[in-house]
Amino acid sequence: MDINADKQCSINCANTVKSEFLNLQGHLATDYELLSSINSPMDVKKLDIGLMEKLASEIRGFLVEKVSKTGGHLASNLGIVEVTLALHKVFDTPRDKIVWDVGHQSYVHKILTGRRDKFDLLRQLYGISGFPKTKESPHDCFNTGHSSTSISAALGMARARDMKKEDYSVIAVIGDGALTGGMAFEALNDAGRSPNNLIVVLNDNEMSISKNVGGMSRYLSKIRTEPFYFKFKEEIEAILNKIPAIGKSASKALNRAKGTIKYMIMPGIIFEDLGFKYLGPINGHNISEMTDVFSRARLIKGPVFIHICTQKGKGYEFAEEKPHKFHGVAPFRIDTGELKAGSGYGYSDVFGSTLVELANKDQSIAAITASMTQGTGLEQFSKSFGSRFFDVGIAEQHAVTFAAGLSQNGLKPVVAIYSSFLQRAYDQILHDVALQNLHVVFAVDRAGIVGEDGETHQGLYDLSFLRHIPNMTILAPSDYFEMKSMLQYAVMVHRGPIAIRYPRGKGRERLAPEVEIHYGKGVRICEGGHLTIISAGTMTDTAITLSSLLKASGVECDVINARFIKPLDAKLIADSAKKTQRVVVIEDNTIIGGLGSAVLEMLSCCGIAAKTKLFAFPDIPVIHGSKGDLIKKYRLDTESLASEILKFMA
Amino acid sequence: MDINADKQCSINCANTVKSEFLNLQGHLATDYELLSSINSPMDVKKLDIGLMEKLASEIRGFLVEKVSKTGGHLASNLGIVEVTLALHKVFDTPRDKIVWDVGHQSYVHKILTGRRDKFDLLRQLYGISGFPKTKESPHDCFNTGHSSTSISAALGMARARDMKKEDYSVIAVIGDGALTGGMAFEALNDAGRSPNNLIVVLNDNEMSISKNVGGMSRYLSKIRTEPFYFKFKEEIEAILNKIPAIGKSASKALNRAKGTIKYMIMPGIIFEDLGFKYLGPINGHNISEMTDVFSRARLIKGPVFIHICTQKGKGYEFAEEKPHKFHGVAPFRIDTGELKAGSGYGYSDVFGSTLVELANKDQSIAAITASMTQGTGLEQFSKSFGSRFFDVGIAEQHAVTFAAGLSQNGLKPVVAIYSSFLQRAYDQILHDVALQNLHVVFAVDRAGIVGEDGETHQGLYDLSFLRHIPNMTILAPSDYFEMKSMLQYAVMVHRGPIAIRYPRGKGRERLAPEVEIHYGKGVRICEGGHLTIISAGTMTDTAITLSSLLKASGVECDVINARFIKPLDAKLIADSAKKTQRVVVIEDNTIIGGLGSAVLEMLSCCGIAAKTKLFAFPDIPVIHGSKGDLIKKYRLDTESLASEILKFMA
Repeated sequence: MDINADKQCSINCANTVKSEFLNLQGHLATDYELLSSINSPMDVKKLDIGLMEKLASEIRGFLVEKVSKTGGHLASNLGIVEVTLALHKVFDTPRDKIVWDVGHQSYVHKILTGRRDKFDLLRQLYGISGFPKTKESPHDCFNTGHSSTSISAALGMARARDMKKEDYSVIAVIGDGALTGGMAFEALNDAGRSPNNLIVVLNDNEMSISKNVGGMSRYLSKIRTEPFYFKFKEEIEAILNKIPAIGKSASKALNRAKGTIKYMIMPGIIFEDLGFKYLGPINGHNISEMTDVFSRARLIKGPVFIHICTQKGKGYEFAEEKPHKFHGVAPFRIDTGELKAGSGYGYSDVFGSTLVELANKDQSIAAITASMTQGTGLEQFSKSFGSRFFDVGIAEQHAVTFAAGLSQNGLKPVVAIYSSFLQRAYDQILHDVALQNLHVVFAVDRAGIVGEDGETHQGLYDLSFLRHIPNMTILAPSDYFEMKSMLQYAVMVHRGPIAIRYPRGKGRERLAPEVEIHYGKGVRICEGGHLTIISAGTMTDTAITLSSLLKASGVECDVINARFIKPLDAKLIADSAKKTQRVVVIEDNTIIGGLGSAVLEMLSCCGIAAKTKLFAFPDIPVIHGSKGDLIKKYRLDTESLASEILKFMA
Repeated sequence: MDINADKQCSINCANTVKSEFLNLQGHLATDYELLSSINSPMDVKKLDIGLMEKLASEIRGFLVEKVSKTGGHLASNLGIVEVTLALHKVFDTPRDKIVWDVGHQSYVHKILTGRRDKFDLLRQLYGISGFPKTKESPHDCFNTGHSSTSISAALGMARARDMKKEDYSVIAVIGDGALTGGMAFEALNDAGRSPNNLIVVLNDNEMSISKNVGGMSRYLSKIRTEPFYFKFKEEIEAILNKIPAIGKSASKALNRAKGTIKYMIMPGIIFEDLGFKYLGPINGHNISEMTDVFSRARLIKGPVFIHICTQKGKGYEFAEEKPHKFHGVAPFRIDTGELKAGSGYGYSDVFGSTLVELANKDQSIAAITASMTQGTGLEQFSKSFGSRFFDVGIAEQHAVTFAAGLSQNGLKPVVAIYSSFLQRAYDQILHDVALQNLHVVFAVDRAGIVGEDGETHQGLYDLSFLRHIPNMTILAPSDYFEMKSMLQYAVMVHRGPIAIRYPRGKGRERLAPEVEIHYGKGVRICEGGHLTIISAGTMTDTAITLSSLLKASGVECDVINARFIKPLDAKLIADSAKKTQRVVVIEDNTIIGGLGSAVLEMLSCCGIAAKTKLFAFPDIPVIHGSKGDLIKKYRLDTESLASEILKFMA
């Protein structure tokens, strides 16, 4: 390894990032002269550093313009412009493989790999995805969406390459937030003992979605901010050799320890100890520096860990100031950074404000998030009850078992995690919470269709993966009022594991007259003798409208808001089913294993052989698009349902 | 901190462990004079070190004697005798809380906390569990079973303690194997930045169940075997201060680096960097040394990491030689170490030998285990195809996504994981394998009732958590012949995610005449017009016997071996159901979301309103006991089923 080449790396990465950031402010490119000529990574390779910097500026302007219209992940992409350019300058996709952890930072990569002109339909139905998709481009080698998977996937690809005696680079690009996910550590642990060539690029922006947390984050921060004088073992050895013999006992000890010192005085020793060659820290907005390091990394045998420092939101002042706001953002005004349509008061806000109310009264309530303070509506709680609020990092597994520990010791923990991300903690919910029947409240946000983030983020499985867990109770509110009552019930009345699943975005304030929450009790909202419609959560709104439509066609419906998906209100449903002999279930979950299956199991158990039909999302990956578009596409809108049900009644 | 006290710690831990081990061989205590007087941890506290060593010897004899009769986890308990004694000498359970990671090493703790006389019924129905159980004793503060949960739970308990302003110690005892589970890292990352007092005891025996793997393991090994001269920062500082000014530039650099050196020259720097105070390595068979360190650790503010070196199987020569054989062991002869009943040729063996046959023909087949080479039957594969065999550590999440990477790059990965442990990888199966429709074969071992390991290990949920995953195919063999055909089908014929679930232990060689495997096709084994019995996997054996019993009572049955739980053979089942109008499903899964629900969903979809009844394990934690006892208890034996079905037919 050439030591001198490395001296070009900036000594104090943090400062360099800061000063460049200041230079860029207010210079958002508005024409894309250079960018419009970039149709593949080959075009990037032709550019010199100066032109690449111009291209970076144009890409930033392009990103801000496009995302301001479609919404999407902005701040992470603004931060990784130069990294992506440098990667494509040095590596040759699709021959070389780049795995983008989480994947929401892959916009720049998409722009450079022939998808620039598709950004007007970003995240829309049948438009390009906001995440890597192998079906979209050969330059996307692995689909991602959830955090911390990239090193595992990349290691698999690298080992397969070596077994097949092929020759190319495999690169995992992972953020410091994703590095707090245990799965990333599992992969580092495995890769570190591996002879296979593998490059891990740590994109360290000191952020998850919110500010990053934990011991690892503090460690990375130390590397970034402390001046390191010895970046390479060779330098250290040279200096150690200059130390003359000193006081007898001390010298003996010191000489013996030299071997240890030379390994330990460098930054990144954790990664070296795990078996990686560590390179860094490197300024992630300096293209020249990165291309040098990437070029050398591709020649290194075994696993390499490149530590790159970037600034999230870089180049757009509002995103720099509030990177979490511009992490995943709705359409906004470029000149002011204001959202075009106010996000309004949604289920997450109802959850958050209700929990604050409850926590004011009860000191034993604690809230836990896995790096989603804002998204889950816990910002006010975190400010009001700092000592009872825990952001554990992108670590859903730990979040849940940590909550089990809190519960076991007498607290009332409320774990707020998006439905799709809660999948990561399935075993912990079952094994650590439910088998012990511990009182942990799961606030399952973004349940059902989430829309634009697509198949990796749809909350379509929670009813199915929670329902068969022993001791578990599952609720779904049909309006804000039920949301409040259910949370109050779950936290203050219930004992044992309990999940409340609610959708992304807004809902109705009040859908039906108030009825108190009682364990395992549903509510009949409409009454009719021809058909039983069972729903829960937001589909209750659909069910009510539907019953009006059907009534117009002469079909009188019992509409039952199940409220409790588990345990079901067997008596209420059985009585209605016996009366109508026809039961349909409408739910925003996959068709397998959800509310519909619960109803079928219950009817079977009660010996009721009614005619039944289930309406839900089909058993396929449900793609991205607006919620409205997807509901229509999968025929869960009231008109489609009415038409299907009339056939069913015939 | 008292530096001198630490000098008592042995310098080279690995050597000390070895020599003590030699002294103990062949001296298995056969009377329990001292042990019989130990009825609570208070009795341990009264003993001096000499008596504690005698007690340790008696406990080893007791463990070997009892486990030789009941079976159970032996090697891990033999390794942790002195650690447990030292913990109970210093800490006061139940006031202080000890969380045992995995929990199979809690026998010594159980012996010391009033359960000595219950070891004759260890792991038997209504006897004591082989794992910590809060219902068994106030000294068990948290239930465990799966790996890597202890630090999360302990941190939860510690933070709850501090919020309630209580004062006691919380200790997590975790093995180096469990430390490779990402969840443990998530917890370390969170605890490391925490002001809360927490003690993590690393029981480092260089083993998971098999030899431990990965970068972390290698790092721990380096600590164990390299001589470290500076255990404490104060010592290092003193020595650094003695270094005189040397060559101008070097001295400047060195002086500046002193602050760095003093933090970095110690062992355990990874844990220090994550925010823990590291103490170790310490000889885990030296009670005196450990009581000193534990006593000091309980006074330290913030998180402490104590690194203890032990030998798995210590004191019983056969367990020392083959710790993996005596990890979880069936009844054995003490004098020879031989198993009393040969374990015989079970499903895992059929899987392993078939996979070897297939791999001989196809170079692209790779096998992956999460630290279960022997248990999953992959030992021969690992020997024959070392370069295609991957033991990734106790890291199920990584195992699955790593397999996805292999698959994406053209290999045929087979991931063999026990049903219960596969829960840990639910999200990875869904998100990384299934949504991309990658060809990964899941060999789901220990599906259904596992028996003596109890509720944390029962494989009762796999059908429910796999069935709703898009693109997933699920098979269950009813005999060895089907096992072979299904594996051949899954690896060589099918494309896409596919799971084969099979039970622990032995099965039938051949249950019914050979029928080739076709996608989504079941087989009708018996024919009758009164009732349709649907089963899959080992319950097919039950179904056949049952149909004979029922025939004797005049009920003629269609018996359908579903083979494919997903997709179901809709035509075969629907035709039969239309004929009989009565359908029962028998499965060794939870009653919710499994094969039974699949049948109900299918009948509903086909508009068939037959009378149905599901037989499966109830929706409660299913406790420990022999498989036979549990099947009777939950009325899934043929007699109970026949009786229930006759009522159903009436």
